[in-house]
Amino acid sequence: MELLCSDIEAAHQRIKPYIHRTPIMTSRLLNQQIGCELFFKCENFQKAGAFKARGAFHAVYSLSDEEASRGVVTHSSGNHAAALALAARTRGIPAYIVMPENSSPTKQRAVRAYGGNIILCGPTQDDRETTAERVLRETAAVLIHPYNDMRIIAGQATCAKELLEDIADIDMILAPVSGGGLLSGTALAVSAMCSPAQVIGCEPEEADDAFRSYRDGVLYPAVTPPRTICDGLRTSLGTLTFPIIRTHVAAIHTVSEQATIHAMRTVWEVMKILIEPSCAVSLAVLLEGKLDVHGKRVGIILSGGNVDLDTLPWQ
Amino acid sequence: MELLCSDIEAAHQRIKPYIHRTPIMTSRLLNQQIGCELFFKCENFQKAGAFKARGAFHAVYSLSDEEASRGVVTHSSGNHAAALALAARTRGIPAYIVMPENSSPTKQRAVRAYGGNIILCGPTQDDRETTAERVLRETAAVLIHPYNDMRIIAGQATCAKELLEDIADIDMILAPVSGGGLLSGTALAVSAMCSPAQVIGCEPEEADDAFRSYRDGVLYPAVTPPRTICDGLRTSLGTLTFPIIRTHVAAIHTVSEQATIHAMRTVWEVMKILIEPSCAVSLAVLLEGKLDVHGKRVGIILSGGNVDLDTLPWQ
Repeated sequence: MELLCSDIEAAHQRIKPYIHRTPIMTSRLLNQQIGCELFFKCENFQKAGAFKARGAFHAVYSLSDEEASRGVVTHSSGNHAAALALAARTRGIPAYIVMPENSSPTKQRAVRAYGGNIILCGPTQDDRETTAERVLRETAAVLIHPYNDMRIIAGQATCAKELLEDIADIDMILAPVSGGGLLSGTALAVSAMCSPAQVIGCEPEEADDAFRSYRDGVLYPAVTPPRTICDGLRTSLGTLTFPIIRTHVAAIHTVSEQATIHAMRTVWEVMKILIEPSCAVSLAVLLEGKLDVHGKRVGIILSGGNVDLDTLPWQ
Repeated sequence: MELLCSDIEAAHQRIKPYIHRTPIMTSRLLNQQIGCELFFKCENFQKAGAFKARGAFHAVYSLSDEEASRGVVTHSSGNHAAALALAARTRGIPAYIVMPENSSPTKQRAVRAYGGNIILCGPTQDDRETTAERVLRETAAVLIHPYNDMRIIAGQATCAKELLEDIADIDMILAPVSGGGLLSGTALAVSAMCSPAQVIGCEPEEADDAFRSYRDGVLYPAVTPPRTICDGLRTSLGTLTFPIIRTHVAAIHTVSEQATIHAMRTVWEVMKILIEPSCAVSLAVLLEGKLDVHGKRVGIILSGGNVDLDTLPWQ
């Protein structure tokens, strides 16, 4: 599965009225520490606090009026849920959001604040999908899968498109991987735009299914029960995202929980911006020295900033 | 005491190689909530994490080579200390920093990281000044007072200058007040640039000496022992800053600790940026409805982002 430059451009034009072109931040201190030039694409400043707004707005505004009128359904641990609720409210249609009971209260509140109808389910992938199917039958709404959907992937691809447009000569782009919507979109954008940048996936050791799937060529299910604090990185790759990632991604690296927490805290302290744990795995890969980036120009997609401020992971 | 436009321009030119022109952020959500247009001048992204870098670099680079060679001394609860240490290191001269024993460990670490020599003292204004005088005698270095110094005030004035250059038709600028360097610099910049903007000082109720000094025309000492969590707002106005503020500032408003903590958390959650408690008083004044800003264009100087992440005030 590929995306043409024109597909990504069309997705970008469709969502531009609704999303932020997020800033790209730099840190001299982190550049010195790691020995490369880092360009942080700040999707924590995106609408609804995560890159997910890109895919959600693209999917919702891709629907015909007839489809849209029946509303949208999804299952998500949080950020896609909030983004889809916001996109649906913006188009004036209902959103039915299946969320695991253990998803963060902050993210549940965000979905409610955007007018989404929450249906709680158990913590496993199966629980989510079964419940979503029931809701689909009951509402006749359109399923917008959080990542295994080319409309979503094309939307997420616009993030790397902006990064490549704004920063010349990027050698490498790091992004977290869970279901693979962001990572496959990033890889397809790099490919479509003929950039020589390598795309690297980053994942918690405690939820390393994408790493193993990529290595073995087998689509493994998610690690259950989830053992990582990265609440956005607990799902497995999909049938669409897996082959894209296998073809277009240069490597997937994993990092410990401790390294992720340290990287998250480092971004807060040094850059004065909030990023969520799921977002910190990419910098953790670099701080742990798992990748040779010496002298390179490295893009890091800071995927989201939705944090529960009552339970910070270093406390 | 006045500053001409040319004085502020000269200060700006002098420090431009060393400081960031900080971004100005907006929040549709906060605009809706408060009923005005807010422009947040993000000095939390400034070098050393606070606007203090402006005054410190200006003062350090105003010294003759002979003066500079003897080094600089100051007393500060933290942000001026770190900024002066950084400016001194940048110029290659020693910095002797008198800090109260109760200043935050994070801020002490920052001063050390920038190569400053810390001399600890008691928590009162007297303790600071006595210790600074002793260090001055011992080192023959130049005193750079944290606020009661026209070089510092002219440096801090460049912050409002950038805000007025970047955003047209500002009706009002809010800034926290402690010693008054930022507030008097802001007021002098507005006056020098012939802007009609009103300048408003914001202060914790628990450290309301500037509010009372402004009201009564009497320069009151700081509230001791300090009762506010705003560790940057515990000192009193100075003999230079007080008359400038009395002449050029439209009002000073005070807010409760609770309102400040709520405002700080709101900025973290909504804007995804770290601001320190001292920085939150201005938004707190607006969230508490203490000022009629309906339909106005309001600049808020987010003064700093140096927070001790182990002791957050809402926990």
